[in-house]
Amino acid sequence: MRLANSRELKERHLKLLSRFNDLGIEALIVTHNPNVFYLSNHVGSSGYLLVTAPSRNAPTGAVHLLVDSRYVESAKRMQEDSITACPSLQVWEVSGSYDEALIGIMEKIQRVEGLALSKVGFEAEHLDVSRFEFLKKKLTDNQSNVELRMTMDVIAEMRMIKDAGEVERIRASALMLTAVTESAFEAVQPGVSELKVARLIDESLSRVGFERVAFDTIVASGPNSALPHHHPGKRCFEIGDLVILDFGGVLDGYCCDLTRTVSVGQPGPEAKRVYSAVYAAQQAAIQMVRPNVSTVDVDGAARLVLQSNGLGEAFSHGTGHGLGLEVHELPRVTKAHSDANKPEVLLKPGMVFTIEPGAYIPGWGGVRIEDDVLVTNDGHSMLTSVTRDLINL
Amino acid sequence: MRLANSRELKERHLKLLSRFNDLGIEALIVTHNPNVFYLSNHVGSSGYLLVTAPSRNAPTGAVHLLVDSRYVESAKRMQEDSITACPSLQVWEVSGSYDEALIGIMEKIQRVEGLALSKVGFEAEHLDVSRFEFLKKKLTDNQSNVELRMTMDVIAEMRMIKDAGEVERIRASALMLTAVTESAFEAVQPGVSELKVARLIDESLSRVGFERVAFDTIVASGPNSALPHHHPGKRCFEIGDLVILDFGGVLDGYCCDLTRTVSVGQPGPEAKRVYSAVYAAQQAAIQMVRPNVSTVDVDGAARLVLQSNGLGEAFSHGTGHGLGLEVHELPRVTKAHSDANKPEVLLKPGMVFTIEPGAYIPGWGGVRIEDDVLVTNDGHSMLTSVTRDLINL
Repeated sequence: MRLANSRELKERHLKLLSRFNDLGIEALIVTHNPNVFYLSNHVGSSGYLLVTAPSRNAPTGAVHLLVDSRYVESAKRMQEDSITACPSLQVWEVSGSYDEALIGIMEKIQRVEGLALSKVGFEAEHLDVSRFEFLKKKLTDNQSNVELRMTMDVIAEMRMIKDAGEVERIRASALMLTAVTESAFEAVQPGVSELKVARLIDESLSRVGFERVAFDTIVASGPNSALPHHHPGKRCFEIGDLVILDFGGVLDGYCCDLTRTVSVGQPGPEAKRVYSAVYAAQQAAIQMVRPNVSTVDVDGAARLVLQSNGLGEAFSHGTGHGLGLEVHELPRVTKAHSDANKPEVLLKPGMVFTIEPGAYIPGWGGVRIEDDVLVTNDGHSMLTSVTRDLINL
Repeated sequence: MRLANSRELKERHLKLLSRFNDLGIEALIVTHNPNVFYLSNHVGSSGYLLVTAPSRNAPTGAVHLLVDSRYVESAKRMQEDSITACPSLQVWEVSGSYDEALIGIMEKIQRVEGLALSKVGFEAEHLDVSRFEFLKKKLTDNQSNVELRMTMDVIAEMRMIKDAGEVERIRASALMLTAVTESAFEAVQPGVSELKVARLIDESLSRVGFERVAFDTIVASGPNSALPHHHPGKRCFEIGDLVILDFGGVLDGYCCDLTRTVSVGQPGPEAKRVYSAVYAAQQAAIQMVRPNVSTVDVDGAARLVLQSNGLGEAFSHGTGHGLGLEVHELPRVTKAHSDANKPEVLLKPGMVFTIEPGAYIPGWGGVRIEDDVLVTNDGHSMLTSVTRDLINL
């Protein structure tokens, strides 16, 4: 697995530290696995970070990694590779509860680093209420001067802008889908089941070199294609079906995501009409992608085309979502929401997201076309490379 | 996908309702996907349940399913199948934020069902602080009489005891590992890489019929086998290596999990010694499995054998974990923890968990042997069926 190098990790660390003042914190507890990986290269189903501000004994701040015994060896090994070691990392072995250990380590750090912790941030969208209540109670019981402070999307917002190494990895990941799509197309034949094709896609993802699937592969045929998130089942393809194929893989930790809709045999006039509308909607959205354009306007461009084709109601989801270490991340490319937690975002170079309009007609079927796109300095660059024509199989 | 039938769903619903009095709640918000599925058969990456107590207009209580437009069609279809429909289910379409919708639905339910909600439970281990704060603020703003009440592990504890349908599915899932293990054994040859074998295992899991892998497959060879959660890499097997193969699949939603350790060429005396000790530890733990025995004593049986072989320190993790809709669930089969949130559990018929002692010697390598076991009325039944001998490949 290709990892971020020490310079990239250092930049992320400094970028995070630069937010501490505004957030009013001297340290941040990082509990979300992809965020832990993003800042430290630590891979594991468990592990916390405590990122601390510069102090007398740690003038550039520190990244404290808490791991249990299963990961101590690998965490130490990780630090032996000078190219990908995480600068300023300190590994702490946790025995028992992570939350209990965290409290102890915060106390120790104050003594060792000479850093007074009064406000410590936590990821409010990634810490559950029971752990939070446990931490709060422990701090009160210990008469600690540490107060926990809610933060939201701090690292998610940093991760929206991919650095050069990340863009390179996502591009490699997305390009590998071309071969997978070809084998998927070949597999769609009358009489073959959704499940069979889903398995062939998963095997193909593995064969071309993905570490794992990015999400459960969707194969939705005939009337099932009207269900945007259909689970592949035993239904076999019939002449006249539209088939939605939606899949992605993870390479070096980075996700890609692609959807194509194909026709089994000659498509009827309604299938052609809906396909053309979705295709045009996708084109319209892609053409909007450049720095300083709002995500809401990218969504609006696709939505307008479908509305003007009488398919406004049939387009029941957002136009896209950010892609990276997670298959759904910021930015969301959707309509403006009343919910103030999800504001629109102005596009910036380095953002990567999907553009995937669709139209779903209950009982009849549906069409979705999805590609991955990168915002560049002067426009955009397509990351996926697969024909978007309606193919008859 | 084989789903729970209506009777099973009804039983789960009634069992949950029977806890409401003790918990002091009239309704429970269920936000954890596997729990939503367990109670409703709804499959999706989103969806909340609000389970409400019996009331004037809903004398057996109700299961309110909140889904967004992507899942409305499939939720309605699910209800059309009389065998697997969820009794007392009501589907609510959410447009925009789930949390916002939940507040509105709680108000509506009070009017429609004639059920006064004063205390509504939520899954404290599955609701993040930001969502909780949002809900709390909305309720205050609306001058609602609803107060949110923390609950812990309510459905997780129900899920510990598998019903007959679940046992059947887990048994089928675990048995399917036999063929996968055989192809994994064949693949381990000098000069072949960890990554290659991991991919062959994943392909084999798909080919034999699993819906997906239950977790990232582990192939750890030579010194890497000393890392319990090693990620398979480019290292190629050499004569004299021990190789840990740890993998599992998901069938009809239910997970299985198996580990075998094999030797590349003839194992040396130390490999034989460590293997025998781990094997004996596993046997000792399995022999303990019967109703009313504590999980701590099952763990202790394995730990004692390893300690008496000088490998106490080398056994750095717990003996096992529950298996079901999730690959890690209750009960935990570990040492007693000081943390009062994780008490020991007395085994009951219907519990399913792994028994997987290991010994890891940094720089040298490691051994782990893992099987899945069911607690029966008078003892236990092995669910996995693969030789546990140290095989030389």
